Amino acid sequence: MDWKKQIKGLKAYQPGRTIDEVKEIYGLDKVVKLASNENPFGYSSLVDVFLRDSYLNHAIYPDGYAKNLRTKISSKLGVNLNQILLGNGSDEIIQMISRALLQPGKNTVMAIPTFPQYKHNATVEGAEVREVALNSKGEHRLDEMLEQIDNSTTVVWLCSPNNPTGTYITEKDIISFLDNVPEHVLVVLDEAYYEYVVADHYYDSLELLKIYPNLLVTRTFSKAYGLAGFRVGYAISSEEIISQLEPLREPFNNNSLGQGAAAVALQDQEFIAECRQNNKQGLERFYQFCDEEGLLYYPSQGNFILIDFGVNGDEVFQFLLSKGYIVRSGQALGFPTSVRVTIGSEEENKGVIEEMKNFIKEAKQEASL
Amino acid sequence: MDWKKQIKGLKAYQPGRTIDEVKEIYGLDKVVKLASNENPFGYSSLVDVFLRDSYLNHAIYPDGYAKNLRTKISSKLGVNLNQILLGNGSDEIIQMISRALLQPGKNTVMAIPTFPQYKHNATVEGAEVREVALNSKGEHRLDEMLEQIDNSTTVVWLCSPNNPTGTYITEKDIISFLDNVPEHVLVVLDEAYYEYVVADHYYDSLELLKIYPNLLVTRTFSKAYGLAGFRVGYAISSEEIISQLEPLREPFNNNSLGQGAAAVALQDQEFIAECRQNNKQGLERFYQFCDEEGLLYYPSQGNFILIDFGVNGDEVFQFLLSKGYIVRSGQALGFPTSVRVTIGSEEENKGVIEEMKNFIKEAKQEASL
Repeated sequence: MDWKKQIKGLKAYQPGRTIDEVKEIYGLDKVVKLASNENPFGYSSLVDVFLRDSYLNHAIYPDGYAKNLRTKISSKLGVNLNQILLGNGSDEIIQMISRALLQPGKNTVMAIPTFPQYKHNATVEGAEVREVALNSKGEHRLDEMLEQIDNSTTVVWLCSPNNPTGTYITEKDIISFLDNVPEHVLVVLDEAYYEYVVADHYYDSLELLKIYPNLLVTRTFSKAYGLAGFRVGYAISSEEIISQLEPLREPFNNNSLGQGAAAVALQDQEFIAECRQNNKQGLERFYQFCDEEGLLYYPSQGNFILIDFGVNGDEVFQFLLSKGYIVRSGQALGFPTSVRVTIGSEEENKGVIEEMKNFIKEAKQEASL
Repeated sequence: MDWKKQIKGLKAYQPGRTIDEVKEIYGLDKVVKLASNENPFGYSSLVDVFLRDSYLNHAIYPDGYAKNLRTKISSKLGVNLNQILLGNGSDEIIQMISRALLQPGKNTVMAIPTFPQYKHNATVEGAEVREVALNSKGEHRLDEMLEQIDNSTTVVWLCSPNNPTGTYITEKDIISFLDNVPEHVLVVLDEAYYEYVVADHYYDSLELLKIYPNLLVTRTFSKAYGLAGFRVGYAISSEEIISQLEPLREPFNNNSLGQGAAAVALQDQEFIAECRQNNKQGLERFYQFCDEEGLLYYPSQGNFILIDFGVNGDEVFQFLLSKGYIVRSGQALGFPTSVRVTIGSEEENKGVIEEMKNFIKEAKQEASL
């Protein structure tokens, strides 16, 4: 086969162990997954009602235009129907953008570490990837990213709150950045964790869209809305940009139930507000633990926290796994001595913190032998 | 924006009118959609039970490896787990293949008219598209397709049964073709309508896979299995080819319920056999109607029939629409004087044939005025 040279040797995504597999391997009755930044509180009860009472005919294709969901997003955000692009998760949005704008001879600028799908898709398209390391606070170094942009740059990726650090870009900084990015460059602002943000000085990305025609914002129903299993993400941008991306969307990319569940979930902002509040309290509990133990961490605006244990992250990961807590080792995330933990329910947070304390205790005992 | 030049001017998919829209516009109580080759009998009752009784947590991501569904397909077809590639519908399989093998400087060979997503994706990738017209029987002209293949050809698309003609490739012809295709060319055999085939001399594509390492077969749960709303398609090929395509699959491309529903649907082959039998009887009813009216048509192995009315297909389409039957005009399908009709239930077939007779009657009356 005459595979494109840039995809040769690419590795397929390696899924982590499932809850059932961990139960079996470690003989555990209960396993808590805090690895993929899912919502520990599930989703709005309105979605339950919808799933119980909706009688969709699954034998027919979904509405390819997703008119109902599109209309709900449009009225919630105050944007036109044609400013919205729906994806099979934000993953597909990233893919469509890459397919439209990245190719050999072009380059793309992004932070490192950040969400890995930007680089993965740029690689598939054969574009040059220019990565700018986060600063010591885990923040995007926007000035250095600006310096990397040249005439061959087609896309810049910003992730705010950034995965895996949870750090965000301030209003002042993003405005200064957007003022200086050449108009021919698409700026993708990934706000997958937008609903969890509680920071002051956070920008209003919908207002920015009105000012900067080369800005595109992505959001998702997989995080705070608790619908990861349904695969619904979306982008908002100018009608001009969306109309150029639309032909790259597969005609029926969003399944029928996902469209319906997302439309219903959007109506329950009380649930989102509760999740945001619970997440804030959960984060504070982790901060307190880290401060007490003298562990470094990044204050987070997401529903996760990256904690530096000062040892191989795989060791912490393995220890917690054996105790029934699945987290993410920082080894694969660019922070080899850290783990990333999703903020869970109060009980889950308490439990995983307890085991983290046990890990530290055991490590100290071993060190003193 | 620096859009790839090949995507400039591409049009987004234009969805047809929904059942509700048609009801409103024409003041109809009942509208039957026979436009998208969906299964008029829905899906297996096992799927209903699954949907009612499964308590999936939709807040967590789907199994990215789709182990359960993959295992079920593997054991049903007698292939290895790593010979299977799952897609968000066959559409995504076509996209992954195109993204891996098509680019400027390469070409791809396909029939015309055939399923439009092959050409669409090849265009997005900037590859040269070489289309070989079907013969007068609506069949792939495999010898002419062979002639179009050269050193820069990376993919050949075969659609059997072919959409929109319903025609198929015989065992003898496909073997002769595969014997002569250079090994560096991937041959994609799209069998979306496989489960409906009743023809003699139909090849066994799974046996062909054992002989030809450059063959890839696609199938779907959207047609006979009646799960179009869930978006599940798949490919089967050699482990080597699948392993090169896997990294292009989005990590969580198949939603959780789709994976579950497809796995369950696969267990009910009795339902599939019934649908095949009903479809065969429905087709015969349409043949009889065409023969009586002297209309040309292609004998079909799919769950649809392309009928040539000898007038602008849009006229037939509009007439049937006003009577509550949504079909597809041949204008957009490369057969401007035809319409494509999905084989429905006995009642639906009877009803649409009745209205087709009325159309012919009215057309004759007008002509005689």
